[in-house]
Amino acid sequence: MSSKVRNLAIGAAVLSLPVALVATGAGAHDERRSSASPLINRAAAGPVDVHAGARRFTRDQTSVIADAIKPNSAKNVILVIGDGMGDSEITIARNYLEGAGGFLKGIDALPLTGQMTHYSVNRETGLPDYTPDSAATGTAWATGTKTYDNAVSVDRHGTPQATILQLAKKSGRATGNVSTSEIQDATPAVEIAHVSQRRCYGPVATSTSCPENALENGGLGSISEQLLDTRPDVTFGGGSASFAEVAKAGEWSGKTLAQQAVERGFEYVTDKAALASITSANQTKPVLGLFAPGNLPVRFAPLVATKGGAALPAAQCQPEPTFAQVPTLAEMTGKAIELLAKNPAGRKKGFFLQVESASIDKKDHAADLCGQIGETQQMDEAVKLALDFAKKDKNTLVIVTADHAHTSQIVDGATPGFDARVRTADGADMVVSYGTSASPGGMQHTGSQLRVAGYGPGAANVVGLIDQTDLFFTMRDGMANWDRAHRSR
Amino acid sequence: MSSKVRNLAIGAAVLSLPVALVATGAGAHDERRSSASPLINRAAAGPVDVHAGARRFTRDQTSVIADAIKPNSAKNVILVIGDGMGDSEITIARNYLEGAGGFLKGIDALPLTGQMTHYSVNRETGLPDYTPDSAATGTAWATGTKTYDNAVSVDRHGTPQATILQLAKKSGRATGNVSTSEIQDATPAVEIAHVSQRRCYGPVATSTSCPENALENGGLGSISEQLLDTRPDVTFGGGSASFAEVAKAGEWSGKTLAQQAVERGFEYVTDKAALASITSANQTKPVLGLFAPGNLPVRFAPLVATKGGAALPAAQCQPEPTFAQVPTLAEMTGKAIELLAKNPAGRKKGFFLQVESASIDKKDHAADLCGQIGETQQMDEAVKLALDFAKKDKNTLVIVTADHAHTSQIVDGATPGFDARVRTADGADMVVSYGTSASPGGMQHTGSQLRVAGYGPGAANVVGLIDQTDLFFTMRDGMANWDRAHRSR
Repeated sequence: MSSKVRNLAIGAAVLSLPVALVATGAGAHDERRSSASPLINRAAAGPVDVHAGARRFTRDQTSVIADAIKPNSAKNVILVIGDGMGDSEITIARNYLEGAGGFLKGIDALPLTGQMTHYSVNRETGLPDYTPDSAATGTAWATGTKTYDNAVSVDRHGTPQATILQLAKKSGRATGNVSTSEIQDATPAVEIAHVSQRRCYGPVATSTSCPENALENGGLGSISEQLLDTRPDVTFGGGSASFAEVAKAGEWSGKTLAQQAVERGFEYVTDKAALASITSANQTKPVLGLFAPGNLPVRFAPLVATKGGAALPAAQCQPEPTFAQVPTLAEMTGKAIELLAKNPAGRKKGFFLQVESASIDKKDHAADLCGQIGETQQMDEAVKLALDFAKKDKNTLVIVTADHAHTSQIVDGATPGFDARVRTADGADMVVSYGTSASPGGMQHTGSQLRVAGYGPGAANVVGLIDQTDLFFTMRDGMANWDRAHRSR
Repeated sequence: MSSKVRNLAIGAAVLSLPVALVATGAGAHDERRSSASPLINRAAAGPVDVHAGARRFTRDQTSVIADAIKPNSAKNVILVIGDGMGDSEITIARNYLEGAGGFLKGIDALPLTGQMTHYSVNRETGLPDYTPDSAATGTAWATGTKTYDNAVSVDRHGTPQATILQLAKKSGRATGNVSTSEIQDATPAVEIAHVSQRRCYGPVATSTSCPENALENGGLGSISEQLLDTRPDVTFGGGSASFAEVAKAGEWSGKTLAQQAVERGFEYVTDKAALASITSANQTKPVLGLFAPGNLPVRFAPLVATKGGAALPAAQCQPEPTFAQVPTLAEMTGKAIELLAKNPAGRKKGFFLQVESASIDKKDHAADLCGQIGETQQMDEAVKLALDFAKKDKNTLVIVTADHAHTSQIVDGATPGFDARVRTADGADMVVSYGTSASPGGMQHTGSQLRVAGYGPGAANVVGLIDQTDLFFTMRDGMANWDRAHRSR
């Protein structure tokens, strides 16, 4: 009975011959065991439609994962955030850019992985809010405190919370803050400012939206003004428009924030060529590079999902012409790492760098599939640079995650929402749906737990189920442990 | 400048005092280090709206995670599948049942975690299909071969592929197969049958839908008939209706499949009381327990999402009366583990058990929020039993994952799809949207990568990015390694 099965298929994968079977196809992954500090290469060897062809590894990974676990003592920390980069957004980008069996060289290469909760809390009640915004979620990892939506590193009662960037600086480290958004936007802002309402970019908005934070009322000032006070060694992003505003109080009252920056010793640059020419950044001359008045453009031209879009011919993403005018996230990240690593404080004490790929979220809100994919590709390139540095440096913790989940879903066919069809790197069609808003411009954040990944000392603290606030303590303790072990006597 | 921040908040979390800060609030998690074989308890200590209150761990987890890594040599393997249980479905259940800072005692307790791809392949072209069905995805982990949607453990050319249950049995192990669905449904079927079309439950459908598999045509027979050939020691689920069909060919031609089961030595039971009374299951007298003609009922009465449902008052899930008539998934899983562990083959050589919580998927298709949540709770209870056994046994690999992602998303407010509002264990409201179909009964599978988690020997092979087919090789090699190490000489 059942002779066909017993003789053919079972015979081909018989339990008593695991060694022979395990040895096949290992060639593509030989590099895995070559380093004491493993990254993972988990591309399918292919072809994916035959037995064993879709495997992402062919040798037992127990020792690879065990070797990736290092005690939490980190000279440097690089935190890379994909805004709105849920598991769905990662999968969409992988399918499109690399194929379903492919492998994102940065995002997918971190060996240690987990799931992360990211709820915020209601300002009045303190009860969980299951669909948080980027200000509350950023505050969580930046300060270890959950807060209300729109809050920037203040708790739900408005009390400022020390940020991991500020603590790193206090420990003697060099610090950096990089984003593809306006530098005053929630994710970069949570590291450098404390305001009650995220829209308080400059003095004008602050006077009306966060009067208690306004300088003229004895507050800490707008996000842009607090950026100058926090004084990271390196700041790259968009958002120069706010620096044209004029301070309303304090030592630089009546001057623009750009003038103030220069008078306070910042090297203030606004174009791609100037970025390339910068050779140092430190507390005497910190670098503030703002490459657009608002958010930086994204890599791909829009492909906005439409009603009935699943039935359209499959598209492929096209270049966005304005993208060439600004530095890529990888260029900003590479420059930031270079400057921080050679900064005297960075060399001696280490550095903290936050990098954000901001427009995964923004393009997901806009149901713009290609915009979202191109920005995830930027994220991937930035992560790869961070990993390349960390692999060489050996004392750098890299954490890669997101602030909240988002709308886009891979579906089989038409939905009542807005759909787009693309032809992927596999040569197959993928349909993506955006269905959380009646307007294609207003898609909502969603509440699914997020993927979190780590590499380097302390990275095992991302494995299993963690909360966003745990990241703060992992980073803080890792840096503190390094400092105790390297205290000058 | 910025004196408020510097003196208060930074002072409270100063980098130079990590030990004191780390020591606070550790009480809730003291058990974590008490065992050589750690599970994790990652509930927030609370309150979640104050600094450090939402942390899921308060001691560095490096050694906990390192201690969880064991070489891949597994006497027993328990694979627990939540059908359609993407990260979103897990989060929805956690928020509702335990609160956002809470912790699912089974699903969330596994220490090693990763992300898993789950695409299928097109039958004609072999190209990836990004939104697979449960038959193709089950075939992937059951056989290590990606196949087309609807295929049950045959490759895309129709060739039968040995299943991990069949290989385990061949190695001398006891075997079990448990599901809350019809036992012929895709996920349980992939372990015990090879048919070209998943609907070939019994002889009638097989003659028309899979004629090449029909007994009268020299094939392996319907899924139900192949179940009797594969002869697992323990089979629990629904699907007795197909066993009233009559065989069309072979030794039992003209008899019902139920008669055939009894004549072939199966103990065939169909009610909850009989389940409780079973005390042994083995190859002489395997147990076949089918507790409903079709799928088993779910725990909670339906709460079906509606147009405009976000604006309705928050509901709470109510018991489903028919649920009391059938065994719970935990009862079936507990009985299966008990029977397999004391089976002579199980005692000496080990066992393989697959458990499926089937109706997360089915209720997600139906936009039934409470149905989905109650079934995820059943899944959680079953996982906890598996972990309890494995923790005591020490030679058992437990893998917990899903077959594909699904529709439900946690949102802030009204969507153009179907929404439902519930009051969670936090006492807060959660809105869940179902937006992949114009009919609330026809929601689609989605393509996001999935959470995968492991405990015990070999579990490190789930960390990082893996594919569903990797699970087959991890389980196969783990059992083979055990066998080599324990071969009688």
